[in-house]
Amino acid sequence: MNIILIGSGNVAFHLGLVLSKKHNIVQIYSRNTENATELAQLTSSVPVNDPDKIDRNADFYLIAVSDDAIKPVTELMPLVKGIVVHTSGSTDMNILNRFKNYGVMYPFQTFTKERKVDFKAIPVLVEGNTTESLNTLIQIAESISDKVSVINSEQRAMLHIAAVFASNFVNHLFVTAKQILKNVDINFDILYPLILETAKKATEIDPEKAQTGPAVRNDTKILKQHTEILNNIVNDEKLADLYKLLSERILSQSKQN
Amino acid sequence: MNIILIGSGNVAFHLGLVLSKKHNIVQIYSRNTENATELAQLTSSVPVNDPDKIDRNADFYLIAVSDDAIKPVTELMPLVKGIVVHTSGSTDMNILNRFKNYGVMYPFQTFTKERKVDFKAIPVLVEGNTTESLNTLIQIAESISDKVSVINSEQRAMLHIAAVFASNFVNHLFVTAKQILKNVDINFDILYPLILETAKKATEIDPEKAQTGPAVRNDTKILKQHTEILNNIVNDEKLADLYKLLSERILSQSKQN
Repeated sequence: MNIILIGSGNVAFHLGLVLSKKHNIVQIYSRNTENATELAQLTSSVPVNDPDKIDRNADFYLIAVSDDAIKPVTELMPLVKGIVVHTSGSTDMNILNRFKNYGVMYPFQTFTKERKVDFKAIPVLVEGNTTESLNTLIQIAESISDKVSVINSEQRAMLHIAAVFASNFVNHLFVTAKQILKNVDINFDILYPLILETAKKATEIDPEKAQTGPAVRNDTKILKQHTEILNNIVNDEKLADLYKLLSERILSQSKQN
Repeated sequence: MNIILIGSGNVAFHLGLVLSKKHNIVQIYSRNTENATELAQLTSSVPVNDPDKIDRNADFYLIAVSDDAIKPVTELMPLVKGIVVHTSGSTDMNILNRFKNYGVMYPFQTFTKERKVDFKAIPVLVEGNTTESLNTLIQIAESISDKVSVINSEQRAMLHIAAVFASNFVNHLFVTAKQILKNVDINFDILYPLILETAKKATEIDPEKAQTGPAVRNDTKILKQHTEILNNIVNDEKLADLYKLLSERILSQSKQN
């Protein structure tokens, strides 16, 4: 397939690299010339920063830009015949309905430019406006991942929210734990085995069954002690609120089971 | 060393197994006869449920019971000469001051009975009432773990709070993500690669640098959309509050960096 990549951020970077092994990346279009040039070099393609120069005859146009930028960028693009897809979790497929063939290809992973990822193991969720678009999309997605599923825009939006909880918010709790330890001069790396085991355990036994700690035991003495320490020592007034809210949720969850 | 194990829950179970490979577990004392018998069989020791029958001549008495049970159990115990330690994160060492030699041995991991753990990689935090107690404690801790550190009760309490955030609360977010996906009939296992990569990433690059998602980008449109979906679709009124609180924290955190 001849592919045009639109965007040069984290998602564009990782998708560009993996797609270039199986397909011909013709151009990288991006306002960020530096990123586009770097990615074009890595994928043997041509960087473009004028939308009028976007090749009109490619098979596949992959828009990997921030959610807010999808609409503006489509308005700059020529009305191509190839399939135009975005990669966003929370944007409806129909944002692309000025094109004839369109869809979504949502790679379900957290991407950081410097980190290599094993794309084969990453779920890729696809949606297409016609059976024909969808079939081509599935073909491309299966060339890079072993875990391709078809889901609709509503499911994808919910999947994105679940990812915010299971990844973005989880990472924020790691940041918080690091700050708590800083108060008593303990290095964050003491948490590494616990962090890795917690994640592994949730993927091997049900997370409901994996719940441990003072909240699920309803250990009110410890819960009170922790709230007091958080109130007194750490310079973050909302931290005790967060502790209470999450502890209450764990307790109420355990009562439901 | 001759060791008496007091307790037969998750922590007692894992510590008993690993200690029995290097030391002689003489007795398992527990009110739960069934658990004590099972653990005694696995560690070639003798189950005891009468506190008067606890051997007075052991070198080391390891109290691995719930925090609330530490004080009552010490009051039942004979005033032994061996070192008496508890394994609690949030209990001061001095709760054991009716004994001559005492301390704390806090294994820093989340334990579930059915899951094997690699004890060598688990940080074990120790504290002793005298240099002599501490040295013996370090010796025992180093017989099972490569990551032994000496910390005081204040540091240990803070470490326990950090663990609640980085493990118990993280697991609750996994439970929450699972429930969110249930609303659109998507199986939790789609999150496995994301969960594992999020944990791995936080242990390989700074969690502050690993933060991704709509909150850190201050993508107000997506944040609003997610809150509305959570309010409308999912039968959990506090879920939108949690989403907002965590998103605000991520945003304020990113402004500090």
